[in-house]
Amino acid sequence: MSHAREMLDASPGPEDLGVVEIAAAIDACADCAQTCTSCADACLAEDDVAAMRDCIRLDLDCADICGATQRVLSRHARFDAALISRLLLACVHACAGCAKECARHADHHDHCRICAEVCRSCERACRALLDEEALKELQALAGG
Amino acid sequence: MSHAREMLDASPGPEDLGVVEIAAAIDACADCAQTCTSCADACLAEDDVAAMRDCIRLDLDCADICGATQRVLSRHARFDAALISRLLLACVHACAGCAKECARHADHHDHCRICAEVCRSCERACRALLDEEALKELQALAGG
Amino acid sequence: MSHAREMLDASPGPEDLGVVEIAAAIDACADCAQTCTSCADACLAEDDVAAMRDCIRLDLDCADICGATQRVLSRHARFDAALISRLLLACVHACAGCAKECARHADHHDHCRICAEVCRSCERACRALLDEEALKELQALAGG
Amino acid sequence: MSHAREMLDASPGPEDLGVVEIAAAIDACADCAQTCTSCADACLAEDDVAAMRDCIRLDLDCADICGATQRVLSRHARFDAALISRLLLACVHACAGCAKECARHADHHDHCRICAEVCRSCERACRALLDEEALKELQALAGG
Repeated sequence: MSHAREMLDASPGPEDLGVVEIAAAIDACADCAQTCTSCADACLAEDDVAAMRDCIRLDLDCADICGATQRVLSRHARFDAALISRLLLACVHACAGCAKECARHADHHDHCRICAEVCRSCERACRALLDEEALKELQALAGG
Repeated sequence: MSHAREMLDASPGPEDLGVVEIAAAIDACADCAQTCTSCADACLAEDDVAAMRDCIRLDLDCADICGATQRVLSRHARFDAALISRLLLACVHACAGCAKECARHADHHDHCRICAEVCRSCERACRALLDEEALKELQALAGG
Repeated sequence: MSHAREMLDASPGPEDLGVVEIAAAIDACADCAQTCTSCADACLAEDDVAAMRDCIRLDLDCADICGATQRVLSRHARFDAALISRLLLACVHACAGCAKECARHADHHDHCRICAEVCRSCERACRALLDEEALKELQALAGG
Repeated sequence: MSHAREMLDASPGPEDLGVVEIAAAIDACADCAQTCTSCADACLAEDDVAAMRDCIRLDLDCADICGATQRVLSRHARFDAALISRLLLACVHACAGCAKECARHADHHDHCRICAEVCRSCERACRALLDEEALKELQALAGG
């Protein structure tokens, strides 16, 4: 059991909010923020840095958004569902975009292969917190 | 002219993206992140701290989201409109919620009065970057 | 093996820098930043919030410093030993202070008990990166 | 008067701590964090990106450390001088290193010229908070 889960169990606050899923999303966001920061630095050190610019930027954006999402999710005693949904929609988008770009470099840069996997995991963990309502909006948004 | 604006003018990148509005939103987010961090600390020092819990949490969430928004907006050379819109929707919501709660304490805590004003300014600056399309989604979301 | 360690192994960069210790410090800082954010929120929800003010502030400072330390350590391809030492000294101090205060509340707040342990682990992981060399250099700096 | 200064004036807390200097350092750190984030992105978009790697990394480290310093300084109601000193020493080092590297590119990249100036200003504002006392204490620590 991760400390995120232990801390949620030890905290005052609503009990019916899916502690397992929230802890999983917190852990996934923390992991993704770190991995993306590391991947941006590794990309910058590669010989083909000019070809890695988009990847670096997507890594940096993803790290910042996952970091903020992790912190907001960690404040679980007062849960603003509307705020969380908006933030998760941004986070899912950032993870999906970063995973897609990293996957393009996965065969020649091992750090991109790992980062693509971590981003996909984070995308899944965040999607699991978004209810039907929010996903419909996401679909409408994506179709627009 | 703020450094945010000077830096956008000095950066390679698309020129038709409303540099004035982006710089204004960057400055407003930076200002709001700092003010909310400061307001949370001041609330925590007040005699009526138990009545200020919601305000403190909203301050902390708003600071984190404004901080991430500011950083993503500052990466302007490659602009992902869909990501920015999602993040701005979260930021507008965080600022509006924090402004509303701070306003409730404005007459007895001067830091809350200032913070409410700064949050409203940031909300406006972020809304100015959201096009009609995004605002309609926001409206649908708020009505749901 | 954590992703931090996998990413360091997969990254271009100096190989003689103690990858195991760096990865351990990155993981410990990420864990500590999240746990402290969560502990601050749990403290804020407790009935005796007025007695928890110092704990909340120490949690928030520790979360911010661990977060920055984790990000700087993750940029391992170019390693500025003097910068890392200074940052680690701040991080060790923040973790030790937060652990001490949390320990005072450990018997009545389980989140503080967990947080104290996590802070102590992070303090140890950061100290392990601070060698004699760094401490001597720091002394020279302070005398200069 | 900046909001940082207004907020310090409006906050409960010790009054003899040099509010003018603290507010100046908060503003300088916020400005520097934003400018460095922007400079890293602009460097990444330049044709000579391979020559800008060090600059990008120094920008990213400086942005993270200035960001954390700004947040810790903003929690002024409870002021841990030893923590602040350690953090300021890291911040001064990061700003000086980033300014030096940016200055090397100032004549061909306008964003680096601006960033070098902003980093120097932040270095000065942080140094102004580091008194003799703090440096002596640090020396004692390093010798202990």
